Amino acid sequence: MSTPRVKEILSWYASENPGVKANLARLMNHGRLAGTGKFVILPVDQGFEHGPARSFAPNPPGYDPRYHVELAIASGCNAYAAPLGFLEAVASDYAGDVPLILKLNNSDSLSKGIEPCSAVTGSVEDALRLGCAAIGFTIYPGSDARNEQLEALRELILDAKAVGLPTVVWSYPRGSGLSKEGETAVDVVAYAAQIAAQLGAHIIKVKPPKAHLEQKEAAAAFQKAGIPVDSLADRVREVVRSAFGGRRIVIFSGGEAKGTEEVLKEVAEIAAGGGFGSIMGRNAFQRPKAEALALLAAVMDIHAKAG
Amino acid sequence: MSTPRVKEILSWYASENPGVKANLARLMNHGRLAGTGKFVILPVDQGFEHGPARSFAPNPPGYDPRYHVELAIASGCNAYAAPLGFLEAVASDYAGDVPLILKLNNSDSLSKGIEPCSAVTGSVEDALRLGCAAIGFTIYPGSDARNEQLEALRELILDAKAVGLPTVVWSYPRGSGLSKEGETAVDVVAYAAQIAAQLGAHIIKVKPPKAHLEQKEAAAAFQKAGIPVDSLADRVREVVRSAFGGRRIVIFSGGEAKGTEEVLKEVAEIAAGGGFGSIMGRNAFQRPKAEALALLAAVMDIHAKAG
Amino acid sequence: MSTPRVKEILSWYASENPGVKANLARLMNHGRLAGTGKFVILPVDQGFEHGPARSFAPNPPGYDPRYHVELAIASGCNAYAAPLGFLEAVASDYAGDVPLILKLNNSDSLSKGIEPCSAVTGSVEDALRLGCAAIGFTIYPGSDARNEQLEALRELILDAKAVGLPTVVWSYPRGSGLSKEGETAVDVVAYAAQIAAQLGAHIIKVKPPKAHLEQKEAAAAFQKAGIPVDSLADRVREVVRSAFGGRRIVIFSGGEAKGTEEVLKEVAEIAAGGGFGSIMGRNAFQRPKAEALALLAAVMDIHAKAG
Amino acid sequence: MSTPRVKEILSWYASENPGVKANLARLMNHGRLAGTGKFVILPVDQGFEHGPARSFAPNPPGYDPRYHVELAIASGCNAYAAPLGFLEAVASDYAGDVPLILKLNNSDSLSKGIEPCSAVTGSVEDALRLGCAAIGFTIYPGSDARNEQLEALRELILDAKAVGLPTVVWSYPRGSGLSKEGETAVDVVAYAAQIAAQLGAHIIKVKPPKAHLEQKEAAAAFQKAGIPVDSLADRVREVVRSAFGGRRIVIFSGGEAKGTEEVLKEVAEIAAGGGFGSIMGRNAFQRPKAEALALLAAVMDIHAKAG
Amino acid sequence: MSTPRVKEILSWYASENPGVKANLARLMNHGRLAGTGKFVILPVDQGFEHGPARSFAPNPPGYDPRYHVELAIASGCNAYAAPLGFLEAVASDYAGDVPLILKLNNSDSLSKGIEPCSAVTGSVEDALRLGCAAIGFTIYPGSDARNEQLEALRELILDAKAVGLPTVVWSYPRGSGLSKEGETAVDVVAYAAQIAAQLGAHIIKVKPPKAHLEQKEAAAAFQKAGIPVDSLADRVREVVRSAFGGRRIVIFSGGEAKGTEEVLKEVAEIAAGGGFGSIMGRNAFQRPKAEALALLAAVMDIHAKAG
Repeated sequence: MSTPRVKEILSWYASENPGVKANLARLMNHGRLAGTGKFVILPVDQGFEHGPARSFAPNPPGYDPRYHVELAIASGCNAYAAPLGFLEAVASDYAGDVPLILKLNNSDSLSKGIEPCSAVTGSVEDALRLGCAAIGFTIYPGSDARNEQLEALRELILDAKAVGLPTVVWSYPRGSGLSKEGETAVDVVAYAAQIAAQLGAHIIKVKPPKAHLEQKEAAAAFQKAGIPVDSLADRVREVVRSAFGGRRIVIFSGGEAKGTEEVLKEVAEIAAGGGFGSIMGRNAFQRPKAEALALLAAVMDIHAKAG
Repeated sequence: MSTPRVKEILSWYASENPGVKANLARLMNHGRLAGTGKFVILPVDQGFEHGPARSFAPNPPGYDPRYHVELAIASGCNAYAAPLGFLEAVASDYAGDVPLILKLNNSDSLSKGIEPCSAVTGSVEDALRLGCAAIGFTIYPGSDARNEQLEALRELILDAKAVGLPTVVWSYPRGSGLSKEGETAVDVVAYAAQIAAQLGAHIIKVKPPKAHLEQKEAAAAFQKAGIPVDSLADRVREVVRSAFGGRRIVIFSGGEAKGTEEVLKEVAEIAAGGGFGSIMGRNAFQRPKAEALALLAAVMDIHAKAG
Repeated sequence: MSTPRVKEILSWYASENPGVKANLARLMNHGRLAGTGKFVILPVDQGFEHGPARSFAPNPPGYDPRYHVELAIASGCNAYAAPLGFLEAVASDYAGDVPLILKLNNSDSLSKGIEPCSAVTGSVEDALRLGCAAIGFTIYPGSDARNEQLEALRELILDAKAVGLPTVVWSYPRGSGLSKEGETAVDVVAYAAQIAAQLGAHIIKVKPPKAHLEQKEAAAAFQKAGIPVDSLADRVREVVRSAFGGRRIVIFSGGEAKGTEEVLKEVAEIAAGGGFGSIMGRNAFQRPKAEALALLAAVMDIHAKAG
Repeated sequence: MSTPRVKEILSWYASENPGVKANLARLMNHGRLAGTGKFVILPVDQGFEHGPARSFAPNPPGYDPRYHVELAIASGCNAYAAPLGFLEAVASDYAGDVPLILKLNNSDSLSKGIEPCSAVTGSVEDALRLGCAAIGFTIYPGSDARNEQLEALRELILDAKAVGLPTVVWSYPRGSGLSKEGETAVDVVAYAAQIAAQLGAHIIKVKPPKAHLEQKEAAAAFQKAGIPVDSLADRVREVVRSAFGGRRIVIFSGGEAKGTEEVLKEVAEIAAGGGFGSIMGRNAFQRPKAEALALLAAVMDIHAKAG
Repeated sequence: MSTPRVKEILSWYASENPGVKANLARLMNHGRLAGTGKFVILPVDQGFEHGPARSFAPNPPGYDPRYHVELAIASGCNAYAAPLGFLEAVASDYAGDVPLILKLNNSDSLSKGIEPCSAVTGSVEDALRLGCAAIGFTIYPGSDARNEQLEALRELILDAKAVGLPTVVWSYPRGSGLSKEGETAVDVVAYAAQIAAQLGAHIIKVKPPKAHLEQKEAAAAFQKAGIPVDSLADRVREVVRSAFGGRRIVIFSGGEAKGTEEVLKEVAEIAAGGGFGSIMGRNAFQRPKAEALALLAAVMDIHAKAG
């Protein structure tokens, strides 16, 4: 039976069919955080996005796709997210062991002359035949290729819903519409969360926002309303509020690999600000396995306590 | 992580995609029998098949569809199986609480002039939008309407597979090709299990076979090979063997309501004969809830011990 | 805003998408019974089913399709239900004036040698282009043509749902599986309500049940459980209970034309037994308009008071 | 490289696309008879057609689907033919080890009131996803359900061709148009071979013909032309001639289990009469494995020598 | 029966249907390297890619499409890969003689103003009607036309899988995102292998990597992890590791024609580094046939010995 908190979160998605709700419940009822309404997800798309050596050489067992799914299972993550190839490599042998999220689009860092816009590299049909609990999709708010990606996402969300699959949206501001600093500006990250929610995302993944304010109209609004942006907790609170007043699940990525203490401090702020959890890739799989398990356990405990 | 026994059972379905395997694993990893490779499923299609008063008047809370799903959850059944209406009535409020099996065809007992052949009353699409873990379908070997139902099943199995759903086949000999006694004859039940397996069923539900032998060629074969049919355990063993040498999951229905002792004795024989479990409807939901929970727990314990 | 009672009824349909719920709400929030959760619907398919003279000669303005929609509007019915032609004749000129229900299948009384099975005479697409709030469909439990009609209904319900339309099922026992008396036997009518509910009907229309018990197993169940069937109210209560413990909307037809007092007495029993309303054709449109308006007002008042 | 004989046989199928030819070549280039243009195929559909005990109790390892595919591989058969379930049970673990033929329709012996007409239990799509080299289909010339089965076959042959799969037709005279003796009458078997060839079968499987002549017009023709029917070799020669003057592959089944000597004598006659090979089920899998291997080797040697 | 090594390699593709596995087995069980898990494939798409004179004038018999398929057969290659026209020219006459791979997209060197992106010049349907064992597709990581080609490939892989065909991806870094030297840089080739694997490629073809490191982040990662890149064997090892820790088949092209000794030295390094084989076009078909056969035999022997 789902806990009252899980039932409460599901109630925010009342327009969805039971299949979508059941898969959201599956994500919330799996692993060490089962029943808390909190999430720690292991995503491993860096092989595709950044290349294999940058991703896996720091901890070479990660070249093998089995390493990651085993890490997600052993650590008690709510789910494991990856592109098609990585999931195909493990979905049969680990069938039913951890909820899978198929990342349906991906970029590499070899093509350089194009506005940020990932290629669609999988389908809802793939997600079903691989037994996934959700699909994932990256959008780049601020990209001039906006319409192409929002429209692809719109169709995928509709198709996925019809077969009972919820959608996790990686909403990463990037593109010629934004300064480099603007990509993590709190107004922009909050805006990116809103866009994802408006598109029908069930779970929204953003980067931890910085105190910078990118858009001058937004800066004026923040100032006038006295929205605090000093601490990460403050900024997370504003981002979560921007996703339908907290009635959409928003989780935060950890970004590039860093020290354990730094990670845990950041996670504590995310939890304090009302974040629903962490999606932690490089900080998990680029550490030796024992360290990764310890770190993930600590991260989960912080989220669990924040309840 | 699935247990070695669950992994072993999944290995029998090596030709299936990971989605089918994951849903089989979901069924085997849920409830009180999780991890044992044994099954107790609550099916409630009698309202449709026998009418509401015959089905629910003995225990009136059963008129309400919530009663049954709650019974399945509370007792720790592996799954709850029902027709479309009963599942729609509960799938949203109990999303994710127990694996659901959508019974895709049903007969009523009002139409009398036709060879046994259930109407198709749901679709694979329904199963997905309701978040089901499998579909169910009844065939009546011995019916002159054989081709119609086998061909409908063939298409549903193929469609269901494509989206990662396994199929449970209720294989109930009936029709003008058989005597009344022949419907539960051990040769005929074993044959019905074989037919379901050849059609691609992942889980096969049959009735506990009786010692009668219906077909004279089969009777000769039983005799010549010295196949014992005296005890129910012996007969169950032959039925399980007839489903690909024991490499398909075969579960046994309880039939009409009877006394607790009688039920448990029958289940003990089924378990002793290598049956994979019980699918128990009337004997569960026609008892007061407390008694039903006690009975189901006892049934599960017998199957669990049979290892 | 919907009333608490309307919200409660909608909560029974939690697995449906918001479109289906909104159209159910539209039906419940229109007319004299708006907000009560009760229904009086005007159906006029008798021209097709019984022929024009039998249907309209008693009150000749009824030959004109405008007569009926105007009667439904003037009387404050929740909805007006009719076959394609009758709706096409008025849907444009009365657009938005009353919720419309497109009857998607119909029988005539000219073909006599066939098992009861209506022809499909309209589509979900027709219902949308005519601005309907629901579709309607007749099944004949007990007919040997059962599978054909249940399977057609299954597809229509699924298609209608996908575009936000609920389905009203006329569930009329008839066919070679039943005696003439059995068509209105309380066990059979209750069974017909259950079948419609299991098929996914949102609103179920049955005939007022008589005290006769048709099936001997059902008779035994009624007797054993002490289910009272003496008064119409008792029998209505059993029928409503048979539709998911009262969690599906069940309304009762008035049958052939009769005296005002007789009609009102029957309606009072239906209301006392927990029926959700009346669907009243011949008793309404075969009377002079003023009398019809008075009768419908009286019927609505009875249902409203039964609250 | 194919041998000249294989190339010659392929030349008879010049209208087919390269995919169909490549799969015919695959069948002819596999196993102990590779390159000879001769065939020995192991078919195991008796579990479905006759029931499990009659089929497998004589040699109990045969209850397990792995037994048969291993027998086909170990003996060096050209192919293994079975219904969907039996192929699904082994196709993944034995991928690529022996050409598979998916039997696309099957009968059981429980339904008795119907004209011979197998149910379609698989599809071309299934054959592709299971990696089959051909499809198989049974027709019953003489059945009143002729049109249904010939028309189903017509569509399957066309669909199979489009994806490069040849079709093996089991052409078994049976039905109300024939006497029991007529089912194996030489005129009827020859006629059945002709019908299969005319339908586009690439490989035709018939029973060894008996000397009986069923149709009086045919008997007259045989007599007038002095067609010898005394020896089985004579009759096989006429059947092969009836399949496009020997330009279609015709193979002969062994029928029910019998003694080794009897089998080999029959095979020798088939080979002498120009038969292209044997399709041997019960005589192979109902023997202990060592005996079966010895028998199949002897059968293959006879065909090989007949060159 | 497949060898243990072939079975091991097939186990890496556990999520695939038996058809895909059977065709992978077909490739591994054909030719001189049958059973070793090693590959030598003859690809002839240079007529399309470079023009006929550049491709075939050095050895004029190569203008005739029969030359190449005969070379592939005579040398015992695992497969012959070519565009539609070349395969259509030979598929019928050489049906079944060697596994065929249909190259589904091709570039010419006449159009110069476009980012690298091959035209799709064939279909999965073509592959089936021609009797192919796999499809082939070229992507150019680094091209600004990335999304177009990855998305075309995604659909083809899914369609091909459904009919049991594996996909060979030619992953050739090229385009405005890369320097000329970068096209064969070890970091980029490894990245290209990873991308192909993530897209679901079953066999990945890359060029032998050079010691150059193109991306500065990758260079840092190589240095930090101490990944050796001095010898070709070292670099091949890193590329193979980058394709799922060695659990995807990676084969290496030979590039432009060169001397026999140079070819064999390169192949020895590829084999020493764990490469699964060679795909050798110009170095084979631009030599006189006898020399080509000798060279291919020597290449195969090197791979076989590397076991």
